[in-house]
Amino acid sequence: MREFELIDKYFSPLSTGGRGVSLGIGDDAAILNVPDTHQLVVTTDTLAAGTHFFHHDNPTDVAWKAVAVNVSDLAAMGARPLWLTLSITLPDAEETWLSRFAQGLKEALTFYDLALVGGDTVKGPLSISVTAFGQVPKGQALTRSSAKPGDWIFCTGTLGDAAAGLALLTKKLRTDESSQDYLLERFRRPAARVAAGIALRHIASACIDISDGLIADLRHILKSSGDLGARIDLDALPTSKALENLCSDVELWEFALAGGEDYELCFTVPEDAHDRVAGVLQASGVQAVPIGRVTTSGDIEFLHVGQPVRLALSPWEHFET
Amino acid sequence: MREFELIDKYFSPLSTGGRGVSLGIGDDAAILNVPDTHQLVVTTDTLAAGTHFFHHDNPTDVAWKAVAVNVSDLAAMGARPLWLTLSITLPDAEETWLSRFAQGLKEALTFYDLALVGGDTVKGPLSISVTAFGQVPKGQALTRSSAKPGDWIFCTGTLGDAAAGLALLTKKLRTDESSQDYLLERFRRPAARVAAGIALRHIASACIDISDGLIADLRHILKSSGDLGARIDLDALPTSKALENLCSDVELWEFALAGGEDYELCFTVPEDAHDRVAGVLQASGVQAVPIGRVTTSGDIEFLHVGQPVRLALSPWEHFET
Repeated sequence: MREFELIDKYFSPLSTGGRGVSLGIGDDAAILNVPDTHQLVVTTDTLAAGTHFFHHDNPTDVAWKAVAVNVSDLAAMGARPLWLTLSITLPDAEETWLSRFAQGLKEALTFYDLALVGGDTVKGPLSISVTAFGQVPKGQALTRSSAKPGDWIFCTGTLGDAAAGLALLTKKLRTDESSQDYLLERFRRPAARVAAGIALRHIASACIDISDGLIADLRHILKSSGDLGARIDLDALPTSKALENLCSDVELWEFALAGGEDYELCFTVPEDAHDRVAGVLQASGVQAVPIGRVTTSGDIEFLHVGQPVRLALSPWEHFET
Repeated sequence: MREFELIDKYFSPLSTGGRGVSLGIGDDAAILNVPDTHQLVVTTDTLAAGTHFFHHDNPTDVAWKAVAVNVSDLAAMGARPLWLTLSITLPDAEETWLSRFAQGLKEALTFYDLALVGGDTVKGPLSISVTAFGQVPKGQALTRSSAKPGDWIFCTGTLGDAAAGLALLTKKLRTDESSQDYLLERFRRPAARVAAGIALRHIASACIDISDGLIADLRHILKSSGDLGARIDLDALPTSKALENLCSDVELWEFALAGGEDYELCFTVPEDAHDRVAGVLQASGVQAVPIGRVTTSGDIEFLHVGQPVRLALSPWEHFET
């Protein structure tokens, strides 16, 4: 594999300037400018074939998802995405795969208004490492650690769809064609909630993106905020019709609470801000619903029709078996 | 593998503040501050087992090298290293491996005064992806693209040692114990030329780090600077006694010109700056020697005892076979 030729052919055309880019792909490193008024926000995530996607998956979707899952972390900080570096490990320089991957990358870069500023192509087992860069006005980033007892817990979008999409792929579920298309799309093409994250800067007390399942990620907020607890109303969990039609209540809760890869935002707001959430999010194209409250209990309790329910949830492990 | 536990145990202790770090590991993303007076410099490089290192290599060395090769790209830009994100893909969460890897990471972070600000641990075939961040005063970064005909070409350190170290590992070479230790160390523990890069900010017209072999990397400078050429004096190539004792002149040239993984700097300076290079580099702990001149020929010519020599060089391909 001739790294330079590959980079030149497929990735250099995608490196076309962008806000704050003094020098993009093509030198030892990129040179970037962060405005005085802003802080840099940085995250990194790797998708490995066999763990996060299937070897035979459409490379266009793989590229999209590799970008989206990173942008989702920026969204959870309330940051505006700016730049991306990409490291692709490939067993061989198969041109068809690369051109389809580059297509998905281009779609995602365009959709999220990102500039590709650095890259590496490496020979080895298929894997995609992305580092994503965003900016946020100084002091305005959303973090995990400022939830307070009594805060309302909200979630954007619907939960459990991606996990159900994966269950369809692994034949653990079956459904009709239109539900299947919807759920698979949610698994393969997650949408990072960038506009929602930005809109929440002045209202959310804490925020996280849901990559490992609502409960696992909510626990990060609760732990970082001082070993707090939560009371979750199972009847309030936002789920799609496609998923509801597919399973029993208990299965639905399992998907929604522990499913993983939703890439929705879970955030907390002070009690007096509860009624302003819908208005704040109006322009973002995504809705959020309250699903419970932060408590001092140190644990997460579940309610169904007002009564406590005990649930045993398995942790989300992508598709390790 | 429980990602959070691994991150907590081995990597969170390494995330201990650092210049400009508002928020390090432990949230969705890091929050970082670049001074108004500076630009951000960013690079990414992946090391895959079987391509860049052997599966049985000492994890401490692997971690060191994963950091050093990235820092080397920052050095080539004249940037001061600041931060690092790290994505490790591992077949299983083997604690012995991880603790030794974390040890090497700690050594490298300390040596280069870097803060670890983000990370991801992933299940899959062994591979390490690093993104390194540095800063440079506005407009002072060194690039590849400003070499001029007549400029002197310099190299730091000695060339070909790392490639010879690899040849020893793959039994393509043999030598005595002390030479072997030296050459293996050069392959396993490359030293990024950070202080040299910074010192060269006001004197070098172009700069690159030598990762793919002097000639391959020099070609990047020549091509980026407008399809220039170069005349290289083979007798001026800086080589170590350990390597010289090991091979014939022609083999020595092959190692020095095409060997790869030197992580020395190759840079150009205007003719009138030639005599200032040694002084500028004095405090950096590394020396540089002139090895030739930039020409308008569009090609690279070699001289030996003043006469043109033709050489057929194989491209450096890590250890693909």
